[in-house]
Amino acid sequence: MRYELYYWPEIQGRGEFVRLALEEGGARYVDVARRRGADAMMKFIDKAKTERPPYAPPFLKAGKLVIAQTALILHYLGPRLGLVPRSKADRLWALQLQMTITDLVKEIHDTHHPISSALYYEDQRPAAKRYTQAFWRNRIPKLLGYFERVLERSGGTYVFGRNVSYVDLSLFQIVEGLRYAFPKRMKRFEAKVPRLIKLRDAVASRPRVAAYLKSKRRIAFNEWGIFRAYRALDA
Amino acid sequence: MRYELYYWPEIQGRGEFVRLALEEGGARYVDVARRRGADAMMKFIDKAKTERPPYAPPFLKAGKLVIAQTALILHYLGPRLGLVPRSKADRLWALQLQMTITDLVKEIHDTHHPISSALYYEDQRPAAKRYTQAFWRNRIPKLLGYFERVLERSGGTYVFGRNVSYVDLSLFQIVEGLRYAFPKRMKRFEAKVPRLIKLRDAVASRPRVAAYLKSKRRIAFNEWGIFRAYRALDA
Repeated sequence: MRYELYYWPEIQGRGEFVRLALEEGGARYVDVARRRGADAMMKFIDKAKTERPPYAPPFLKAGKLVIAQTALILHYLGPRLGLVPRSKADRLWALQLQMTITDLVKEIHDTHHPISSALYYEDQRPAAKRYTQAFWRNRIPKLLGYFERVLERSGGTYVFGRNVSYVDLSLFQIVEGLRYAFPKRMKRFEAKVPRLIKLRDAVASRPRVAAYLKSKRRIAFNEWGIFRAYRALDA
Repeated sequence: MRYELYYWPEIQGRGEFVRLALEEGGARYVDVARRRGADAMMKFIDKAKTERPPYAPPFLKAGKLVIAQTALILHYLGPRLGLVPRSKADRLWALQLQMTITDLVKEIHDTHHPISSALYYEDQRPAAKRYTQAFWRNRIPKLLGYFERVLERSGGTYVFGRNVSYVDLSLFQIVEGLRYAFPKRMKRFEAKVPRLIKLRDAVASRPRVAAYLKSKRRIAFNEWGIFRAYRALDA
């Protein structure tokens, strides 16, 4: 199977969680919009004949199937790429955790866009400051603390113990992104989630991930994506 | 199977999407926190021995399984309650739509709490006004417009045509909630989504749903839940 990933070509964004799984899973895939431009992607969404149109990127074409929503794409790819255990209960658990990561990603996005995605960051800066303050006081401790607790009970480095899953790849990306966007805050916080940091290191040193991170396929973090390095928010 | 639903006893909130499915599906279930109080629920989350703790309510106990995340609970219950077609592609499609409803629910919540859930509405009123303005200008047309388009292509009243699914029950709840929280805005908007309104009416007149809505099991909308009737936001 050759997969087709459709996502914005200039950013890591939500698509990056899928790219990491495709890379670690050794999948054959095309990053369509990076090869053919975002128009090809939008045409697909708008095309009148798409019977089941995706709401938004990222979406994945797998043969005739079209799957949108990051967590659902990963749920679909997981068993096919060996990135989740096979039992039903384990697959549900992985998807449940991934959905909580989805919630976290939305909140991270909202640190710089609390009022509206249709406005520039510059037009919502005071709200962004307030949001970010509360986010680091209440939400980061609660959410990362939750994943730390999950890892504590997993009996290993990863969420499922010794075997890496797509959830671990996503948690790696969360740590990387928070380090990029909030270097000072993250530096102070990391001591509270040692297992998460250990997981991050373990994922980073996996041969396929390491090769991917060094390749041109890995887009650099920038100020158009989810994680943005705005100094004013990292006070 | 007797299901146990764990959710805040005073509000519809996210739990209501599950309650609607349990009711329409004719399931045997206990709404645990309404019977025994929220402490029983929180104890379950905090309990040291829960190997795979839910992040937050709602969660469902089904035998030994514990499932959190509204959309995932519905994905699990769907085939068991006859509320989703059996094919894999259909189940993925239903879950994809439900995840988009999850995104919408979060945005609806943020109309009154754009800065932080840890603050009162009264402490973020100007931001809430701005958020709500943009929400009704950009997001509601895009999101409800998307579901309208899905219904247009479904070949019937419901998302899967003639047979009701858990997604339809959730869309019913979205329309009901928006009518409660934003009566004026919603009145102006409804003409743009006639299929969604027709779906709402069809769900409301299903015997089990109708009986549930009249029962004491249906908690009334109030200002602690997702949908809140704040006049200042319905200008």
